[in-house]
Amino acid sequence: MRTYNTEIISVGTELLLGHITNTDARDISEMLSRIGINVKYHTVVGDNPERLRACVEVAKTRADIIITTGGLGPTCDDLTKQILAEAFDLKLVENEDEVKGLYDYIRNSKKITPNNLTQAMLPEGCTVFHNLWGTAPGCAFKAEEKIVIMMPGPPVECVPMFRTYGIPYLRSLSDEEIVSHSVRIFGIGESSVDDMFAEEMNAMTNPTMAPYAKECDCLLQITAKAKSGEAAETMMEPVIAHVKERLGDYVYGMDVECIEEAVLPLLKERNLTFATAESCTGGEIAKRFTDIPGASSAFLGGAVVYTNEAKAKILGLDPGMIEEKGAVSYEVAKALAEHVRGITGADIGIGVTGLAGPDGDGVHEVGTVFVSMAVEGHTFVRSLTLGPKRTRSFIRRMSGNHAYDMMRRWLTGLKVEL
Amino acid sequence: MRTYNTEIISVGTELLLGHITNTDARDISEMLSRIGINVKYHTVVGDNPERLRACVEVAKTRADIIITTGGLGPTCDDLTKQILAEAFDLKLVENEDEVKGLYDYIRNSKKITPNNLTQAMLPEGCTVFHNLWGTAPGCAFKAEEKIVIMMPGPPVECVPMFRTYGIPYLRSLSDEEIVSHSVRIFGIGESSVDDMFAEEMNAMTNPTMAPYAKECDCLLQITAKAKSGEAAETMMEPVIAHVKERLGDYVYGMDVECIEEAVLPLLKERNLTFATAESCTGGEIAKRFTDIPGASSAFLGGAVVYTNEAKAKILGLDPGMIEEKGAVSYEVAKALAEHVRGITGADIGIGVTGLAGPDGDGVHEVGTVFVSMAVEGHTFVRSLTLGPKRTRSFIRRMSGNHAYDMMRRWLTGLKVEL
Repeated sequence: MRTYNTEIISVGTELLLGHITNTDARDISEMLSRIGINVKYHTVVGDNPERLRACVEVAKTRADIIITTGGLGPTCDDLTKQILAEAFDLKLVENEDEVKGLYDYIRNSKKITPNNLTQAMLPEGCTVFHNLWGTAPGCAFKAEEKIVIMMPGPPVECVPMFRTYGIPYLRSLSDEEIVSHSVRIFGIGESSVDDMFAEEMNAMTNPTMAPYAKECDCLLQITAKAKSGEAAETMMEPVIAHVKERLGDYVYGMDVECIEEAVLPLLKERNLTFATAESCTGGEIAKRFTDIPGASSAFLGGAVVYTNEAKAKILGLDPGMIEEKGAVSYEVAKALAEHVRGITGADIGIGVTGLAGPDGDGVHEVGTVFVSMAVEGHTFVRSLTLGPKRTRSFIRRMSGNHAYDMMRRWLTGLKVEL
Repeated sequence: MRTYNTEIISVGTELLLGHITNTDARDISEMLSRIGINVKYHTVVGDNPERLRACVEVAKTRADIIITTGGLGPTCDDLTKQILAEAFDLKLVENEDEVKGLYDYIRNSKKITPNNLTQAMLPEGCTVFHNLWGTAPGCAFKAEEKIVIMMPGPPVECVPMFRTYGIPYLRSLSDEEIVSHSVRIFGIGESSVDDMFAEEMNAMTNPTMAPYAKECDCLLQITAKAKSGEAAETMMEPVIAHVKERLGDYVYGMDVECIEEAVLPLLKERNLTFATAESCTGGEIAKRFTDIPGASSAFLGGAVVYTNEAKAKILGLDPGMIEEKGAVSYEVAKALAEHVRGITGADIGIGVTGLAGPDGDGVHEVGTVFVSMAVEGHTFVRSLTLGPKRTRSFIRRMSGNHAYDMMRRWLTGLKVEL
């Protein structure tokens, strides 16, 4: 199969001012890596015709596929289509369907201005990608042995459009299918995973395998190409089985984005619920779970008990016990999980207390956290020392991962404590 | 003053695979824009010597300042220093202080390997930036009329290092000071702000002014340059006063990152506390506030009452009332704020109930949210219809912004309801 090197050019002065982050390039890159297309460069350039033109010229020398994001809107700043059409010596022509679509979309809000209509001007002969998430259409064309794809800039438009139109368009270039799976791992770091599989990874060509670090966990990406998706899946099966066997309990899921996404189906299968009592994580564990649509079937709710008073008033912890043992203690963690389970009637109660920093309490080192899980007949407590060099954000996120890991282990019959 | 065009080259295959987002480029760009240095390009390239070398050659043709992030670590993938030194015909020499620093840093964890020591090899004559947040030092040098700055890749190292060393290093290049302030706005959109000030913005040269959209609010950035910081401040004073007067109540703060950051000092000044009862936001309001170090002085805690059962069991809402009025209702929102205030003894109780989607409840449109605030003697309720086209994440974040906006308005004596 031919290798297509790809460059993503993101157009927008706001990116260069640091007002927004280039998540489009990340999301497109992730989608492309899953179908085995190599992204070699990301470029960000402002809404400036000369500089954009120069970037396109550079991209033509080093990429086979050029993907642009941004600059397709109706204002005079939006120059991407004009510049790309010029660069490949194409005319912009009005697309009737898109003109009609624009009328439909904005009929009730305001009248069409000539500026709005520029959105329907597209390179002659291109494949039009109608924008169901906004007004500016995207498009793709082939010229001078390059493939050019243009996507709108706002991530809420760019990401679903690239998934819906960009990926199928690029898949059709090849008579081979590329399939990829990620094995998600919590409890050991990327470097340990690397050490564990280094020799075999070096020897593999198809499928291939590579470890990647995320903020508080890591993953092993396995990719195969074959004449069909089924054949690629069949090639990967023994590799995945082998990897899962060697990694054992550390594997929390396949093709999920985070550990809470792996926990939700485990709870649903067993028709179980949980509730949370969070001190140092301050609502983060609840927030992360409720980021997932449909979380309410397994999550009853919980308490954010940031102060000792709240621990007593909302959850009925004994103020004397808190005083005696200290807010950051095994005993308080245990009581948090048990009390929230008792009050809500959840099957599982989760408790967290610790020091997320930057200030300490004069007793414990920043990064000291107790994570607890109360179930029928038993309460588990993990004592963590995440280290004072870690950021507040890392300590809070890692504590949450441990809570979800304890649930996952209990729900699948594994040893819970570390 | 001379204009320095800047290119940021981020080195790392993980960026091109979409495993991580290039927040370094955003954060560095934002810091540079505050001191008036123009970033013209961001480039991302993998851990590949030929491609990195080619990117550096491109950057030399179009930028005066080249900033690299990543590739300074101890593994054989880490090539940035070698390639940049070669590109400017400099030798890498061992830096004694850094060798000693490396020994100190990892003495207790593992023995020094030759790989670790490569981190102390730096371009001859460079200014060394000692890394207090990790092991790999950064550096800066001037050669061929270019300024080169190299920073480590992990954001927890890159951002504080650039703030501590990079910004002062670049400031020293100029005999003029550039100062910038952002006026943060909630309640009207970027385009309205743009319309309001378009004419005067076009006429301004120094200070300058520009509006920017954030996910759920916007800002007006005002920048001035002068012989001294004080002189720049003096130039901006009347502009800021004028802008604040025209925008009135919509301005929630100056030079803050988010509305909760503006609320914390208002609560502290008055020695007041709040507590939260969150349904559809699922802990997000609490999580955001506790992201701020020192939040515990003003935030008692709260409840995440995702289900009707939890609303009754944790906060004692009347199940009959919930049944009658519906979970997404003015009455439930009001009761949430009042109950959490009553239970915790907080001065302010915040309640949120609504539909964040993607699924509806068959009664309300997705995006219907009631946000409430109970204070001594009164409970305010805002009824929002954020629209079914919005993402779950937007609806949750915007609901939180409204809660904080209601607190801000009440704390500063403004009209609370919209």
